[in-house]
Amino acid sequence: MTDKSQQFASDNYSGICPEAWKAMAQANQGHQRAYGDDQWTERAAEHFRTLFETDCEVFFAFNGTAANSLALASLCQSYHSVICSETAHVETDECGAPEFFSNGSKLLTAASVGGKLTPESIREVALKRQDIHYPKPRVVTITQATEVGTVYRPEELKAISATCKDLGLNLHMDGARFANACAFLGCSPAELTWKAGVDVLCFGGTKNGMAVGEAILFFNRELAEDFDYRCKQAGQLASKMRFLSAPWVGLLEDGAWLRHAEHANQCAQLLASLVSDLPGVQLMFPVQANGVFLQLPELVLEALRARGWRFYTFIGSGGARFMCSWDTEQDRVRELAADIRAIISG
Amino acid sequence: MTDKSQQFASDNYSGICPEAWKAMAQANQGHQRAYGDDQWTERAAEHFRTLFETDCEVFFAFNGTAANSLALASLCQSYHSVICSETAHVETDECGAPEFFSNGSKLLTAASVGGKLTPESIREVALKRQDIHYPKPRVVTITQATEVGTVYRPEELKAISATCKDLGLNLHMDGARFANACAFLGCSPAELTWKAGVDVLCFGGTKNGMAVGEAILFFNRELAEDFDYRCKQAGQLASKMRFLSAPWVGLLEDGAWLRHAEHANQCAQLLASLVSDLPGVQLMFPVQANGVFLQLPELVLEALRARGWRFYTFIGSGGARFMCSWDTEQDRVRELAADIRAIISG
Amino acid sequence: MTDKSQQFASDNYSGICPEAWKAMAQANQGHQRAYGDDQWTERAAEHFRTLFETDCEVFFAFNGTAANSLALASLCQSYHSVICSETAHVETDECGAPEFFSNGSKLLTAASVGGKLTPESIREVALKRQDIHYPKPRVVTITQATEVGTVYRPEELKAISATCKDLGLNLHMDGARFANACAFLGCSPAELTWKAGVDVLCFGGTKNGMAVGEAILFFNRELAEDFDYRCKQAGQLASKMRFLSAPWVGLLEDGAWLRHAEHANQCAQLLASLVSDLPGVQLMFPVQANGVFLQLPELVLEALRARGWRFYTFIGSGGARFMCSWDTEQDRVRELAADIRAIISG
Amino acid sequence: MTDKSQQFASDNYSGICPEAWKAMAQANQGHQRAYGDDQWTERAAEHFRTLFETDCEVFFAFNGTAANSLALASLCQSYHSVICSETAHVETDECGAPEFFSNGSKLLTAASVGGKLTPESIREVALKRQDIHYPKPRVVTITQATEVGTVYRPEELKAISATCKDLGLNLHMDGARFANACAFLGCSPAELTWKAGVDVLCFGGTKNGMAVGEAILFFNRELAEDFDYRCKQAGQLASKMRFLSAPWVGLLEDGAWLRHAEHANQCAQLLASLVSDLPGVQLMFPVQANGVFLQLPELVLEALRARGWRFYTFIGSGGARFMCSWDTEQDRVRELAADIRAIISG
Repeated sequence: MTDKSQQFASDNYSGICPEAWKAMAQANQGHQRAYGDDQWTERAAEHFRTLFETDCEVFFAFNGTAANSLALASLCQSYHSVICSETAHVETDECGAPEFFSNGSKLLTAASVGGKLTPESIREVALKRQDIHYPKPRVVTITQATEVGTVYRPEELKAISATCKDLGLNLHMDGARFANACAFLGCSPAELTWKAGVDVLCFGGTKNGMAVGEAILFFNRELAEDFDYRCKQAGQLASKMRFLSAPWVGLLEDGAWLRHAEHANQCAQLLASLVSDLPGVQLMFPVQANGVFLQLPELVLEALRARGWRFYTFIGSGGARFMCSWDTEQDRVRELAADIRAIISG
Repeated sequence: MTDKSQQFASDNYSGICPEAWKAMAQANQGHQRAYGDDQWTERAAEHFRTLFETDCEVFFAFNGTAANSLALASLCQSYHSVICSETAHVETDECGAPEFFSNGSKLLTAASVGGKLTPESIREVALKRQDIHYPKPRVVTITQATEVGTVYRPEELKAISATCKDLGLNLHMDGARFANACAFLGCSPAELTWKAGVDVLCFGGTKNGMAVGEAILFFNRELAEDFDYRCKQAGQLASKMRFLSAPWVGLLEDGAWLRHAEHANQCAQLLASLVSDLPGVQLMFPVQANGVFLQLPELVLEALRARGWRFYTFIGSGGARFMCSWDTEQDRVRELAADIRAIISG
Repeated sequence: MTDKSQQFASDNYSGICPEAWKAMAQANQGHQRAYGDDQWTERAAEHFRTLFETDCEVFFAFNGTAANSLALASLCQSYHSVICSETAHVETDECGAPEFFSNGSKLLTAASVGGKLTPESIREVALKRQDIHYPKPRVVTITQATEVGTVYRPEELKAISATCKDLGLNLHMDGARFANACAFLGCSPAELTWKAGVDVLCFGGTKNGMAVGEAILFFNRELAEDFDYRCKQAGQLASKMRFLSAPWVGLLEDGAWLRHAEHANQCAQLLASLVSDLPGVQLMFPVQANGVFLQLPELVLEALRARGWRFYTFIGSGGARFMCSWDTEQDRVRELAADIRAIISG
Repeated sequence: MTDKSQQFASDNYSGICPEAWKAMAQANQGHQRAYGDDQWTERAAEHFRTLFETDCEVFFAFNGTAANSLALASLCQSYHSVICSETAHVETDECGAPEFFSNGSKLLTAASVGGKLTPESIREVALKRQDIHYPKPRVVTITQATEVGTVYRPEELKAISATCKDLGLNLHMDGARFANACAFLGCSPAELTWKAGVDVLCFGGTKNGMAVGEAILFFNRELAEDFDYRCKQAGQLASKMRFLSAPWVGLLEDGAWLRHAEHANQCAQLLASLVSDLPGVQLMFPVQANGVFLQLPELVLEALRARGWRFYTFIGSGGARFMCSWDTEQDRVRELAADIRAIISG
């Protein structure tokens, strides 16, 4: 049993899942070619192509900051701009990484509904300015599942990609929690990406049980030209690449990636179901992935902290985020819910 | 017994050493704070401070490309220049990473002797141009051990740092194989860095038995201002940082870092001793670390390849590099030497 | 008499004033050293030092985009951020230039009152986030006169600079229309800059009657270290520098810079006085420099355009900007006012 | 008569030629649209299209540093490399500007003969490395006329462009002294550019008699996509653009660009003819443009300086560069030659 204080703060507080660990152990045999020219990397790439039912280009980066920033940089030039939600991680929590990797591409925030961009909000920002004094929109980035725990349905994605096509914009998906979206919707990875018009996906491994590492999938292969050089120059080419790719084999070969996401989602649903009927408690967003956002009175938040729980409150006044992960214990969920209930009753 | 073909191609073809693996396993317990705010990261930093006998600032990056490029970028502005050897890894094998991270700092190559810069060669480049049309030299970077397997002795380092101080230059050390230099010289890490005037060291972990990761040590703490932000923006802040830092604890707590280096060095010495007296074989550089550079007839190289050996030949005509690592088997060294002997005799 | 259509669209639609032209003609004698090592450049710098009553560092750049972006880049690193008004030119009309020159520094927009930042709005943005995932605020940039034609009074500037000092922020002033602010307030350039705590000023020459060129004045000389290299690398060092600096001599030596600004301001006041009492006409901002922002019914705007007038309407719904310049003819102002009056009466 | 000391130091020590001046005076009438949306800019672009006999895309930048750097940046990405001569201005005298504008593209120097690249030297560098650790060559840049006063003939250009096409490289021409090359060869601008396979030309105006300004001509129009945004973001879009473009109209409409170049070339020929037969004097390069490079004994150089002459000696030991410009006086050439003769005889 682990220290409860860190259980719901973030899904990257979790460790390495058994499947990833086992694959790393297997990969740790003897010498292997470096820089991705090894069998594990080839196997991982093949697993992605099978899972996504398409011959996509696959690259591996160390973390989401780099994966998303490199992908965006490959989709535009420095004088172009990237349309994103005002709650998008690339805008709010990457310390200017997209601007750094692209050498200056500006992020333009568009209005979102439940953390999701809409064709209308994209169109409004894309068409706001057409003059040379404003960076030309060239990319739309959406997060699936979103930063507030909601998901885009296939028809929403298709409407967005149609808008992008109409406006000459590339479509990028930040999939730090892509597995959770697949789990919630019961859709195939293909349905939520290239079949819906997504050009590039950054598929998150870290939050899904890996130690480190994200995969970048180009469904539009032309956009991947020389992307390997881009990764190398930007410090994202691992020499012992097998230790980044083998865990993917572990996650993908028997469906662990989806099981873990389903588990985390269920924990989130459980938490929501246990507290959402309490007086003074309000779900800020529908629970569609592994996060629960609760509007709670400040006194309740303080009491929760006093009981040792840790969580972030960066969204709105009084809002608290509780994140579940692949290894969240249901008993802990119940304990948290009981504490909330007790505090509110008390 | 492993496939011989990959044994001597590169020291990053090796896997994860037991000490690093064990620490990762220990770190993989329950939830931990992310982004370096965990106990393993603090412990690793403390180990570095103890080992280097000074209160240095310690940061962790994913690989050497990033560690060195970020360090150099922190030591100069885009309109400054970096003096390095013409064989320096940052110049020859980083795909423009230093220029990318610094947004344009030019590398100026200086003549080297046995892969090593000298006060004279530094001075010559630093003073060649003083006008505004040429990027102002601001940093010297040296590699310890060098790319050709030689090492800088403390008095050489002191002479270089004195020259740097005289010319207003910061001194950076690329320590991808720093452990091998310590092992060869029998010097303490402090003697080979800050006591000799080095401002910043990038201490390589990957070649020393880790899966991934390098440490950046600022002995001049003022130069480290906001370096954590720099790492974050550049995609080098691991969320599950403990898996980058715990292996360092494993390597440092009982001296494994030095044992591994000593072993690799001994393998290199063994190889050199077994073949250097052969006719037609010539040591291109003194063997002071874990690499052996042999001048061999092209026919011999071909015959070696035909027998399944892999090695790089990027230095000069006919030169072949054989790298030993923490897990190189001495039997394999003898087998390689025997093959060289047999081919030359044949 | 010139085509009325272009008279009020922008103050950079104007040409070269006689004083600047004459100085260029005088400078065009024989050969002169290049890259600023000439007498005109030295004279211009001296004039600035005399005018500002301080031994500031003076540099010349080709335009405001570059002058402001280079100045901001010198005040922060790529992982820092710049606080500006949401109407700041650097945010709205520079196509990502500040982000490009700084290699990624994010602009953080703060609320403004009448186009002006306040200590409170700066403080709010500067203290909003203190974590490593958000670019650290390091600079505040204010525009004097602002983009909506208002000016900061000395006491407002002092309050802002005190806030900056308190928060560890550098203070930059975009002075594209600095002369107009001086003219309106009757303050000396020193009172509106270093005496009020401004670190760096970009003094606009183009809108003040020059063909091309801005001056960058560092009152905090330490911040100017190697700024000449920065300009050179960024393509902002003119070879025939005398043609950038001589016009400044023409503008500064007999006070033309201030006369031109006074004239433009008076034209703006005249326009405002002639139309502000009309029904349906509303001054959007107090007229304190050379711009008049009128809230007009859409039908009136269309009628004005039909009569041949050109103006921008980028601020709010129905707002029209009329800019006066050093060479605006008062008859044209009266003609415009008469047309507005006629349309509204009609 | 002007001060002799500055006459031969550099061709950018010269002033504004009458044709450019007159055009600027004419352009300085009333108000004009800004940012290139004016009649002078359209006229200048048309003149270029007529002169080059093709419908090229034309842009204007403030100086050669920016024009060349922006053009190169548009031809490659940061992880690509640019092949140039080791004497290329972009390599030796731009303070890292190409690296800055491209965000890190490395310049790879190739051997040159008489300052000129050859198909062989290009091929050697382009094929030296094919791995991901080395920036992928993507552009070749040549200077016409070269930095040592030689010119590429059409057949040389065609051989180079064929090599580029074969290797997948774009071909850029730095034409700071393009007019001088045309004048020497008697070739049309078209013959020396797009007809010979050049993709982009930076046509120098400053050294040809303008105050400021270069033109960038894309013969391959696809490569010019969004180049206007690139210029704007990089601080190279003039607000009062007419003062950059009108001088071009002055230079191009009656052939002044070529007359000035012919004059400068003739002065260089005159100087060479007057001194090349002297004992101890050696022409370092054939005189094909407006520069004369003389190998002179150090004592002679000192004596020349003592007599008040200024010149650069940055090429080899004892080499002195004497540059002629559009306004060089033949009497001054004779005076310089006489002084050299006298010193050597003395």
